[in-house]
Amino acid sequence: MKLGRVGFATPEGLQPRIVAVLPEQNRVVDLLAAEALRLRRRGAGQEAAARIAAALFPPSMAAALAAGPRFREAAEEALSQAGDDTWRAIDDQTWLPTLDPPVMRDCLLFEGHLRNSFAKLGLEIPREFFEAPPYYKGNPRTLVGHDAEIAWPAYASYMDYELELGIVTGASGRNLDPEQARSLLFGVTILNDFSARNVQAREMNAKLGPSKSKDFATALGPWITTADEVDVNDLTLRARVNGEEWSRGNSADMIFRPDEILAFISYGETVGPGELIGSGTVSGGCGLELGRQLNPGDVVELDISGIGTLRNRLGPPEHAGWDPASKVVKT
Amino acid sequence: MKLGRVGFATPEGLQPRIVAVLPEQNRVVDLLAAEALRLRRRGAGQEAAARIAAALFPPSMAAALAAGPRFREAAEEALSQAGDDTWRAIDDQTWLPTLDPPVMRDCLLFEGHLRNSFAKLGLEIPREFFEAPPYYKGNPRTLVGHDAEIAWPAYASYMDYELELGIVTGASGRNLDPEQARSLLFGVTILNDFSARNVQAREMNAKLGPSKSKDFATALGPWITTADEVDVNDLTLRARVNGEEWSRGNSADMIFRPDEILAFISYGETVGPGELIGSGTVSGGCGLELGRQLNPGDVVELDISGIGTLRNRLGPPEHAGWDPASKVVKT
Repeated sequence: MKLGRVGFATPEGLQPRIVAVLPEQNRVVDLLAAEALRLRRRGAGQEAAARIAAALFPPSMAAALAAGPRFREAAEEALSQAGDDTWRAIDDQTWLPTLDPPVMRDCLLFEGHLRNSFAKLGLEIPREFFEAPPYYKGNPRTLVGHDAEIAWPAYASYMDYELELGIVTGASGRNLDPEQARSLLFGVTILNDFSARNVQAREMNAKLGPSKSKDFATALGPWITTADEVDVNDLTLRARVNGEEWSRGNSADMIFRPDEILAFISYGETVGPGELIGSGTVSGGCGLELGRQLNPGDVVELDISGIGTLRNRLGPPEHAGWDPASKVVKT
Repeated sequence: MKLGRVGFATPEGLQPRIVAVLPEQNRVVDLLAAEALRLRRRGAGQEAAARIAAALFPPSMAAALAAGPRFREAAEEALSQAGDDTWRAIDDQTWLPTLDPPVMRDCLLFEGHLRNSFAKLGLEIPREFFEAPPYYKGNPRTLVGHDAEIAWPAYASYMDYELELGIVTGASGRNLDPEQARSLLFGVTILNDFSARNVQAREMNAKLGPSKSKDFATALGPWITTADEVDVNDLTLRARVNGEEWSRGNSADMIFRPDEILAFISYGETVGPGELIGSGTVSGGCGLELGRQLNPGDVVELDISGIGTLRNRLGPPEHAGWDPASKVVKT
C-alpha cells in the first residue's frame, strides 16, 4: 500500500489529508472521506461517520501511525470500498511532506559516499563509522513535500542534493535485537537531504554534527510504500538533475541494514511510531562526489524502485541573514 | 508568569494540562478549568466554555505557544479570576516535560566548559566554536519532567549531568538580526542534558554529533518563566548532587547571547513557536570537568535564579540492547 499526505484547499488554508496512492491508476483516494462513506453505508449517522473517520485519518501522518496496526487496517478497509466520489487525480495534488516525524535521524551508511565525500570535504574517515550506525538529527520543521520549491539560503554557495532511502517506523520498542526491530518498520519513502557543502565541513569540524548545512530544507515523499510491498535490502535508487542521470545505487550496499539500524536506535532509547531515519547518501549519490553542484532553477528527481519519484526545483537565493562572524569574539 | 505542564489522572491515563505556577503560594492553577469557569461566569454554556478553554490550553505546550500573543493573554485572563476550585497544591503534581518541542537544539556556549570537557574527552578545540553558535539536535521524545526518574541505558558506564539554561521560542521568524530575534523569545526553563561520557567521544569523532550519549534522557522543567520576569543575560545557575553543590555559573558568560543564537538559527531556517534551545553547560557545570560521576540512585538538582529547581533521580541500569560491534563489518 502507498500512503501520502496532500493539502486540500479550504477557506482557512491548506488542510492536510492522508491519501492512499494508486500511481498505476493516476489517482489518490481521500481516506477520511472514503471511511466516512463506508461507515454511512453501514448505518452510521453523518456526524458520527465523519468523527470516527477523522480520528482514524488525522492531518498528521505521525499521529495516524501512532494507532499501530489499526491504522493500516483502517486504510485497507476504507480503500476497499472507495467510490468515484473519493478519488482525485494524482496530478492535481499539492503534496505535503509525507511524514511529520517527532524526531528525524539521518545516517551515513554507504561506504563509497563516506570515502568520496570526506575526501572532498578534507575530512579524515574515523573508524567509528564502521562500529555502529552513525547519524545526525535533522530539523523536522524544514521537511517539504514532492514538487515543493527548495528555499536557497543566502549562505549556500555550494548547493547539493543527496539521494537517500527514508525509513518510517510504525510501532514502539526499546532494547530490541535486529529480528525484533523488524516489527518497527512501517514502510519506506524517498529523502533528498539538500546540503550547503560550503558550510558543512566547518560544522562537522565542530563535532556537534551538521546544522545550517542541512536544516534549510529536506524533501520527503512523494509517499510511503509499506514494507510488505518491497525488499528494503534490495532497492534501486537513482537521481536525475534536469533530466540527466547523475547517480545510481542500491540499498543492498548499506554498512548496516534497516533492522540493525532500528535495533541500535532502540538501545536505551524508546523508538516510537512516525519516526524518520534516512539511510544516508548512496555511493556517488550527490554532486560533491561528482565534482558538480546545483544552480537556482535546477530540477532534482530521485527515484526508488517500488516507491516512485520525488521531484523538487531549487528556488532563487534569499537575502542574507545575520552573520555571527560580524561579532568580535574571543579566539 | 510561570507556566508548566502536569499530568492529571484520568481513567485513560495521565492527561497533560497546562498550569500557571505560583511557587510562593505553593500552588498551581489549572488554566483550562480556570478559563472555562471565567467564560461561564460571563454567560457561556458549559460545553462552549469547555470547548473554547480546551482550544486555548491544549495538552501540548508547543501547540499552545503556536497561538502567539493570544496564549499569554489568555493565560493572564484565566489566572486573574482563578478561584479555589482551580487551584491545586504544587507538591501533589506529576510534572511532565514543560515543553514538547518539534525541534530541540543544544548549544555549547560556555568557553570554560568547552576547554575543560574537550580536554577530558581527548578532543582538540576547533576554532569553529567561536565563529558561530555551535549546537547539536536532540531527540525531543526522550524529554522528561521534574521529579521523573532518569532511565540508565546499559551502555552508560560514565553517567553525568549538565547544568544548562533552556530557551523557549514563542513566535516565528526567518533571517532576523539579534534585535529582531528578541521577539522570538518566550521564556526560559532549566535543562539537564544527562550524558553517557564513555560513548560521547566516539560519537563526536564521527563528526555527526552526539546521539546515544545524549538521547536516552534529557530533563526539562519544572516550568517556563516568561522572558519579562528575568534578565536572560544574567541568570545564576547551580547544580547539587545528593544535596552537595557541585557547579555554579552565570548566563552572562555565554560566548553568544540568546538573541544572537536565535538570529543565527533563523538564518535560512524558519524558527517557529515552541522550539527548545539549550545554552550548553556552564563552565564547571558537569561531573566530567570535576573528575566525578553519577551513580544509580543519585539525586541531581539544578537551580536557576528566577525559575526554580529541576530535580531528578537516576534509575537503575537497564538490561543491555543489541551491540552493533557484534556484527563483523568492514574496516
